[in-house]
Amino acid sequence: MPKPAYHILVCTNQRPPGHPRGSCGENGAMEVFEKIGMGIEQKNLFGKAMLTTTGCMGPCSMGPVVVVYPDGVWYKGVKPDDVDEILESHIMNGKKIERLEIPDEMWG
Amino acid sequence: MPKPAYHILVCTNQRPPGHPRGSCGENGAMEVFEKIGMGIEQKNLFGKAMLTTTGCMGPCSMGPVVVVYPDGVWYKGVKPDDVDEILESHIMNGKKIERLEIPDEMWG
Repeated sequence: MPKPAYHILVCTNQRPPGHPRGSCGENGAMEVFEKIGMGIEQKNLFGKAMLTTTGCMGPCSMGPVVVVYPDGVWYKGVKPDDVDEILESHIMNGKKIERLEIPDEMWG
Repeated sequence: MPKPAYHILVCTNQRPPGHPRGSCGENGAMEVFEKIGMGIEQKNLFGKAMLTTTGCMGPCSMGPVVVVYPDGVWYKGVKPDDVDEILESHIMNGKKIERLEIPDEMWG
């Protein structure tokens, strides 16, 4: 088995409810993480994608944030309902999902 | 400011001392994380490199594990003394450090 082609990072940082910065954890990141893990299993993507939780990656108000490497694609506001599309379009077919991308201006 | 060119991931997963799988946290990952953060500041690499903690990435016995994207280079057994070399060679000059790399056979 080679190194998996994709590494999916899910910020699961948790701040208390009502914290002014918000957090991916507060916005349901753990459910997204679990659904991605189940999807990797169900679609038999073990050799193709790794999945890892992370601490804060910065754009807290846009969470849950999911990043896919080596492409460096940052997704925002990911919901469990988006997971199948991420796995089938991006991981299985190499096509990122533009409507979920964090806009470049965010880095400005 | 564009998206930073490099994203440095440091596994800081912590298992109890003596746990049979070991953990990056038990092997000093937090010190490595802090030293990388200080190095980014001191060498003024904010626009060039982001730094994020992660949960378990798998090769626990080889920790602390540090991964650099988009290159997909996995470093093992990283010590605080290795941090300047990682920042100066890899991040500032694009040259990965072969003696710290996890061998490809690990993925077999």
